[in-house]
Amino acid sequence: MVRLSGIFCPIPTPFRSDDTVDERALRSNVARWMHTPLVGLVVLGSNGEAPQLDDEEADRIVAIVRGEVPRDRVLVAGTGRESTKATIAASRRAAAAGVDAVIVRTPSFFKPQMTSEAFVRHYTEVADASPVPILLYNVAMYTGVNLLPDAVEPLASHPNIVGMKESGGDIGQVAELVARTPRGFAVLAGSATTLFHALCAGCDGAVLALAALLPDECVNLWTLVREGRLDEARASQRRLTPIARAVGSTHGVPGLKAALDLLGFVGGPPRAPLRPAGTQVIEEIRRQLDALGVLPTARV
Amino acid sequence: MVRLSGIFCPIPTPFRSDDTVDERALRSNVARWMHTPLVGLVVLGSNGEAPQLDDEEADRIVAIVRGEVPRDRVLVAGTGRESTKATIAASRRAAAAGVDAVIVRTPSFFKPQMTSEAFVRHYTEVADASPVPILLYNVAMYTGVNLLPDAVEPLASHPNIVGMKESGGDIGQVAELVARTPRGFAVLAGSATTLFHALCAGCDGAVLALAALLPDECVNLWTLVREGRLDEARASQRRLTPIARAVGSTHGVPGLKAALDLLGFVGGPPRAPLRPAGTQVIEEIRRQLDALGVLPTARV
Amino acid sequence: MVRLSGIFCPIPTPFRSDDTVDERALRSNVARWMHTPLVGLVVLGSNGEAPQLDDEEADRIVAIVRGEVPRDRVLVAGTGRESTKATIAASRRAAAAGVDAVIVRTPSFFKPQMTSEAFVRHYTEVADASPVPILLYNVAMYTGVNLLPDAVEPLASHPNIVGMKESGGDIGQVAELVARTPRGFAVLAGSATTLFHALCAGCDGAVLALAALLPDECVNLWTLVREGRLDEARASQRRLTPIARAVGSTHGVPGLKAALDLLGFVGGPPRAPLRPAGTQVIEEIRRQLDALGVLPTARV
Amino acid sequence: MVRLSGIFCPIPTPFRSDDTVDERALRSNVARWMHTPLVGLVVLGSNGEAPQLDDEEADRIVAIVRGEVPRDRVLVAGTGRESTKATIAASRRAAAAGVDAVIVRTPSFFKPQMTSEAFVRHYTEVADASPVPILLYNVAMYTGVNLLPDAVEPLASHPNIVGMKESGGDIGQVAELVARTPRGFAVLAGSATTLFHALCAGCDGAVLALAALLPDECVNLWTLVREGRLDEARASQRRLTPIARAVGSTHGVPGLKAALDLLGFVGGPPRAPLRPAGTQVIEEIRRQLDALGVLPTARV
Repeated sequence: MVRLSGIFCPIPTPFRSDDTVDERALRSNVARWMHTPLVGLVVLGSNGEAPQLDDEEADRIVAIVRGEVPRDRVLVAGTGRESTKATIAASRRAAAAGVDAVIVRTPSFFKPQMTSEAFVRHYTEVADASPVPILLYNVAMYTGVNLLPDAVEPLASHPNIVGMKESGGDIGQVAELVARTPRGFAVLAGSATTLFHALCAGCDGAVLALAALLPDECVNLWTLVREGRLDEARASQRRLTPIARAVGSTHGVPGLKAALDLLGFVGGPPRAPLRPAGTQVIEEIRRQLDALGVLPTARV
Repeated sequence: MVRLSGIFCPIPTPFRSDDTVDERALRSNVARWMHTPLVGLVVLGSNGEAPQLDDEEADRIVAIVRGEVPRDRVLVAGTGRESTKATIAASRRAAAAGVDAVIVRTPSFFKPQMTSEAFVRHYTEVADASPVPILLYNVAMYTGVNLLPDAVEPLASHPNIVGMKESGGDIGQVAELVARTPRGFAVLAGSATTLFHALCAGCDGAVLALAALLPDECVNLWTLVREGRLDEARASQRRLTPIARAVGSTHGVPGLKAALDLLGFVGGPPRAPLRPAGTQVIEEIRRQLDALGVLPTARV
Repeated sequence: MVRLSGIFCPIPTPFRSDDTVDERALRSNVARWMHTPLVGLVVLGSNGEAPQLDDEEADRIVAIVRGEVPRDRVLVAGTGRESTKATIAASRRAAAAGVDAVIVRTPSFFKPQMTSEAFVRHYTEVADASPVPILLYNVAMYTGVNLLPDAVEPLASHPNIVGMKESGGDIGQVAELVARTPRGFAVLAGSATTLFHALCAGCDGAVLALAALLPDECVNLWTLVREGRLDEARASQRRLTPIARAVGSTHGVPGLKAALDLLGFVGGPPRAPLRPAGTQVIEEIRRQLDALGVLPTARV
Repeated sequence: MVRLSGIFCPIPTPFRSDDTVDERALRSNVARWMHTPLVGLVVLGSNGEAPQLDDEEADRIVAIVRGEVPRDRVLVAGTGRESTKATIAASRRAAAAGVDAVIVRTPSFFKPQMTSEAFVRHYTEVADASPVPILLYNVAMYTGVNLLPDAVEPLASHPNIVGMKESGGDIGQVAELVARTPRGFAVLAGSATTLFHALCAGCDGAVLALAALLPDECVNLWTLVREGRLDEARASQRRLTPIARAVGSTHGVPGLKAALDLLGFVGGPPRAPLRPAGTQVIEEIRRQLDALGVLPTARV
């Protein structure tokens, strides 16, 4: 059984200036996250710039990270592709590389045809074929399609589908997912700006880019809600919201990588057409991290 | 100089029942289109299910179609990928295979970061690196991002960017593209339901899935507008609109493939997660084709 | 000081079959709500079909309800109009009729011009002129404009603006309103489908059409969150969500009025162009109320 | 028979600095428009700030304008209200004041309930009761609801419904309205930025705020399309588009009023919450009018 409760981090992919994967940086970043209370890592997610990697790069990244993550942490790899066929192939490769589970972003190109019925068939075929458990992954902000509770409910009873990540901030939809899926099916939030609300709504945990920067704070917020300490949890959310927004919808992966650089990780440049955060954005993020008291002393 | 005026057809990719490319069907379809007044073909476009093909399949398709298309027709290949790097690599491979130009769909995953500035940089880098001329390709219906005139205007002066396909039906945007780009820059419409309007607005031509089914009718509409015969052109559009809608936004590639089967081409099944058109949809399309008098006699 | 904490009901306006206000029914409905734990009533809100009433009808309704509501409950009247001038006039008339406060829906017709700056000026002028305290009212579902926290924050410091009703379900926006306004400024939720979440986010209370039907259940949910009994509150929300949705976005005022009829209030027909709920809708609502055990015994 | 072919102007309502209607200015503006080739005027439309006027003001405006408009021009009054009842009452008052037809904006407050069926009933009741012919009026940009061809088609056969104004720029929808209504039913465009396209699509004419400023140019464009001189018409549209956009969606009624002031009409301030155009906007509009060579000489 994969443990899918608590806070996960979807790790970015560091690139060198020649646009190749910086494997050494990847290793050192992962090693550092292993000293935090994160339950596990997600490689090749949206924040890992997965849609911009080729299959060889992707496979290599999984192998490297697997080497750094001990077995008592959970390692999940993103394997969503536009075709069912390619998704199954990627899931098998990731399973062979030793991941604990795969997380499968919705296909999304042919939007009008991506009905709940199409999603149910797609995920059923992937789950049937995958050697490891799968998680559904809904990220409408990037895909422009919405995996609705009407599709998730039937999929949640498939023995090889163990949970989902819902990145949207529509709290009604999050609550409906929790209500319409069985207890053993993990609903993980994906939006750090509404983390507190999603946990109140009954989410088991979250997969948060913000957790790459502030793992202790994210885990703490999760714990506060678990213990029913609402006022403290709400206050914690308020402190985190500005930086969550900056490295989320506002500045995206470039913002996240800039923040990692400021914290002593290796963020590095994103892959084009993404562009590195500009000076003003870096300064804005620096101020937000400073206000939280997490900047390395030398930098303040 | 590539001739970019008139009607192009973005050809579908036929698959066998085992989900592999049906090369023989591809050849026979192309051979038949070569007996129509189409100016040229686009391979690996949205209607070619390009986002669902792997690179080897894509390269093979270009090679096959190149073999069937004589030099007096224009052959364009879709080479858009999510990363600038992969887009350049695909464009070079297509050029090496002998295409006349490449058409580059906007990257679209990281929507909030896909600003006009990001698009200008992306396309400039691709155009600088591509051995053959490039066309921009805006298809917001599928990508969820919009390549605005503010980005197209500066790109239109790049010597290796020779035109664009605008698939949207926003006639104001189409008109603005025509107005803000030089005469030598081709603006091609991509929506058959608004073809008449786009041609009135000044488009040089169009790239239409509908032209795979009704090449003569599409070319005729183009000619009528050229000759200022507005009433006839408008009436022609009205006749074509129902089938244009059916094989466009309503039933998409599955609808297009069903229509091809009805007309004696090889449509075949789409690749999953797309599903073949159901009986009702096929019947609806059959009636629309029948009303236009284009069904093979045996079927009527 | 007006007490703005707890659950309010925005009461519907009963009409006779000749499309005139049924004053007797209005009185008897109000009298019955006075035997529930509701903190107060809102007349002439969206659910009161205010945009479809003329000024004379509106004034008469305020006078009637004022006569039925004792001074230890709060009576608020909706006075929003499209012009600042008419809004001020309506607010003065309501104040003269003895309401405790007025609630002012955003003007919304000229959407592109309804900027935060325009809203700040509008509400400031209304608050300056109103003899009684005012509440802001954001109901984007009906108005198509959004009163953003950037406008609410400066308005919240006006001495005559004592709170707001936020009808939207965007929990991030609700949380931001709570965070960016002072403690004495009441933030009231307006969406019963996300009531639990809004209360967790720190709302002081709510103004809910659902409370016309299920006042005890709504007050109970509010109390559960206050006492930190999250699991029970979440379960209560789940029970209420289906009927909340039915009398909210799905069937609107006609649904609400049908439900009132089923519960022994006088709902009656809505005013055209609204149409009475059809047989199927009534049956659906009857089943939902039955499942909650609140239907009068004779009907079950 | 009301003549509904050609260019109409929806006239603004001039206010004095004390927020009352400036009747003298209204008269002088109308008198000046009577020296242009406009087919007729629309009073109490969106550009007349109708939603911000009370019934007495509205009635007075109709009476004044009727006095200035000779019988060989067409005078239409806007009488749309949120309730069917109030719409009928307003239509009867306008008819009594001698207008040739009324134009009825869709009710729009209860958006989810404003289905095609609801619109068909509403307009049928209004048309049945109105002593003068009615025009439908769809202006989704302001109302947030869309009067679809599915509703218009059945209404177009009502003997007292003689046409419609479609203010949207969706050329597919405009073309569908033309295709699905009989010849005697006038389809009038309402968007000056897409006037050329709407006329190509088969519209009989247009009701344009821009025509208050540039009546000759608007009528000329209409004539060019009638005569099949597409290139000239397209070029004319291009010249008009910037100012059309400025006094349309970008700066709205405040922009239109500023432009009127610059041209020697009385624009005056809009009614709050609308605010007068600022210095920068006025300067932008001045430059646009100057580029068209229509500014009074003294000002250039």
